[in-house]
Amino acid sequence: MSPTKPKVYIVGVGMTKFCKPGSVDWDYPDMVKEAVNSALDDCGLKYADIQQATVGYLFGGTCCGQRALYEVGLTGIPIFNVNNACASGSSGLFLGKQIIESGNADVVLCSGFEKMAAGSLEKLASPIDDRSKREHYAKIAYKNHLHSVHNPKSQFTKEFSLDQVINARKIYDFMGLLECSPTSDGAAAAIIVSDRFLEKNPRLKSQAVEIVGLKLGTDLPSVFAEKSNIKMIGFDMIEKISKELYAETKLTPNDVQVIELHDCFAPNELITYEAIGLCPLGKGHTIVDRNDNTYGGKWVINPSGGLISKGHPIGATGVAQAVELSNQLRGRCGKRQVPNCKVAMQHNIGIGGAGVVGMYRMGFPQSAQSKL
Amino acid sequence: MSPTKPKVYIVGVGMTKFCKPGSVDWDYPDMVKEAVNSALDDCGLKYADIQQATVGYLFGGTCCGQRALYEVGLTGIPIFNVNNACASGSSGLFLGKQIIESGNADVVLCSGFEKMAAGSLEKLASPIDDRSKREHYAKIAYKNHLHSVHNPKSQFTKEFSLDQVINARKIYDFMGLLECSPTSDGAAAAIIVSDRFLEKNPRLKSQAVEIVGLKLGTDLPSVFAEKSNIKMIGFDMIEKISKELYAETKLTPNDVQVIELHDCFAPNELITYEAIGLCPLGKGHTIVDRNDNTYGGKWVINPSGGLISKGHPIGATGVAQAVELSNQLRGRCGKRQVPNCKVAMQHNIGIGGAGVVGMYRMGFPQSAQSKL
Repeated sequence: MSPTKPKVYIVGVGMTKFCKPGSVDWDYPDMVKEAVNSALDDCGLKYADIQQATVGYLFGGTCCGQRALYEVGLTGIPIFNVNNACASGSSGLFLGKQIIESGNADVVLCSGFEKMAAGSLEKLASPIDDRSKREHYAKIAYKNHLHSVHNPKSQFTKEFSLDQVINARKIYDFMGLLECSPTSDGAAAAIIVSDRFLEKNPRLKSQAVEIVGLKLGTDLPSVFAEKSNIKMIGFDMIEKISKELYAETKLTPNDVQVIELHDCFAPNELITYEAIGLCPLGKGHTIVDRNDNTYGGKWVINPSGGLISKGHPIGATGVAQAVELSNQLRGRCGKRQVPNCKVAMQHNIGIGGAGVVGMYRMGFPQSAQSKL
Repeated sequence: MSPTKPKVYIVGVGMTKFCKPGSVDWDYPDMVKEAVNSALDDCGLKYADIQQATVGYLFGGTCCGQRALYEVGLTGIPIFNVNNACASGSSGLFLGKQIIESGNADVVLCSGFEKMAAGSLEKLASPIDDRSKREHYAKIAYKNHLHSVHNPKSQFTKEFSLDQVINARKIYDFMGLLECSPTSDGAAAAIIVSDRFLEKNPRLKSQAVEIVGLKLGTDLPSVFAEKSNIKMIGFDMIEKISKELYAETKLTPNDVQVIELHDCFAPNELITYEAIGLCPLGKGHTIVDRNDNTYGGKWVINPSGGLISKGHPIGATGVAQAVELSNQLRGRCGKRQVPNCKVAMQHNIGIGGAGVVGMYRMGFPQSAQSKL
């Protein structure tokens, strides 16, 4: 690792409301424009300040990123269309961080979008162990819907009762509609900069969120060697890169207050508690039992409402997680603000596949404090 | 620019033969496997040495890169699927170089592939000025077909007469079949490493090709402001990044002996002579008239046969150019070897779009010499 590798900060974030496909009269360039302009406004930068850009998406032909960004700020800059399944957005963020670390750019735009077809996502799910019961999954979905009530960007913002979750129309096996992330249209954007840029633009320090660490992995041989649904959805990959993240950042889940976690389906959230080491293997349900995943507990997990309530516009998802975490760290989340929020964690995964985990904190907490 | 930014070298290259779609019983993972294994063999490295990878392609769903690379070396490493139209391969190379410059990896695999449908590519073309005549385009195609005779990886390896080129079945306006790049299946791969890696593996110095400079641009406002076919195919973008490349590398076309240039159609090659500054604007035809684009002239342009003869499997194209140039610099090209080859230039473009230009030379010419 180069001793002079610059630190990387998120200084501007923006996103559209996530919406039911077909409910808004827009195409993907409209969404991207709204999210990117919102991120630029957030930090007072112009498109002309952007030196390179990544655009994550799943459904779309080649160069959708160019098509969308040309409209925002006619251009010439390097643009990369990144396609890593449901981790496309965070893969772009990971690339953007490396681009800044390379010294080739001081300001990179990382964005993602999806314009989806109507209909629900369906996927395999299986209980993780005998102790996790049907109710544990339902409680996770109940919690995420409850969190979304205070997130105006969420597709759903409605509280449902646990009974409603349990008795919802079944999508697969025991799993009901309210435990699955809905298809969604939307876009999200983050402007990331180097420490060198911040030194020249000190006004941004008070809102600069440091990307303390970000790890990306792909599937390990166990995915193919073992006939396990849990391995198949990337358990080993996430476990490995989380351990690497903790070693590299010298931060552990004990340092974290808020987590945006890839809850494409309620069981995935529970499984991920174990994969990222919030608890020992087979003990994910204990976090649910102790309410350690919501306000008043050890962590607030998916304060945005998560994918289950906020929606899962695939390419936007990983970037939108970074948007929520940045706003949480900056204390801008109003009624869904996680108290005493110092360190935030991200988890985003795409089957087949890639997984990303990251740690964030305010880069200059004293500057941030003086602004509050 | 960081003062400690590592230099980046290509140490291993490989590619499949480029083939008519449907003529070989393979799928894209087979192609990628062959190209990557060939690149690994070329430098005596193992898949386990690879720390990150890029995979360029146009036709294919999400995570084709993972699907292909998992089979080569079950994995876990960050893999990025890069889609930048016909410049996808070189966009991946550009990203790979930045990843090494970031200090996050010392060995990156940059690959690309395409499995295409049958049928020819068709596109607009217009004469660049009154002085360029129909024969100039035909002569370029004639030259590229002639070059391909000694390239066993080329889809076509047949010499055609100028009359055959001129009288071939017309594809668009005056342009005939032999002046258009054929659709093609194929894959290419390059292993790139940092100077730090080379210090630890000095045996590779004798074959290490330095990426002296690599620039990527996207369309400029003139594409939209002016109703010009020539602007539309990226003239201004290529002119701009070429000038930046020359300024950054302190190399000019006068230092170059060999060029792999994106000749998707014969007129594009002529136009590009002007865009990259081989001659003044409106004088592209003089290079043809003076035979300054072939053996015995000032440059050898497309010794591989170019896209017109070698084929244009989209995601592989930009990487395959780097393969040819590396082999030219290393003196490994047999009967198509460009004599006294010291500096090589690359030009790869995708409409809609992105363009890449690069400069290459042997990193350690004395080591290379002592091996010859």
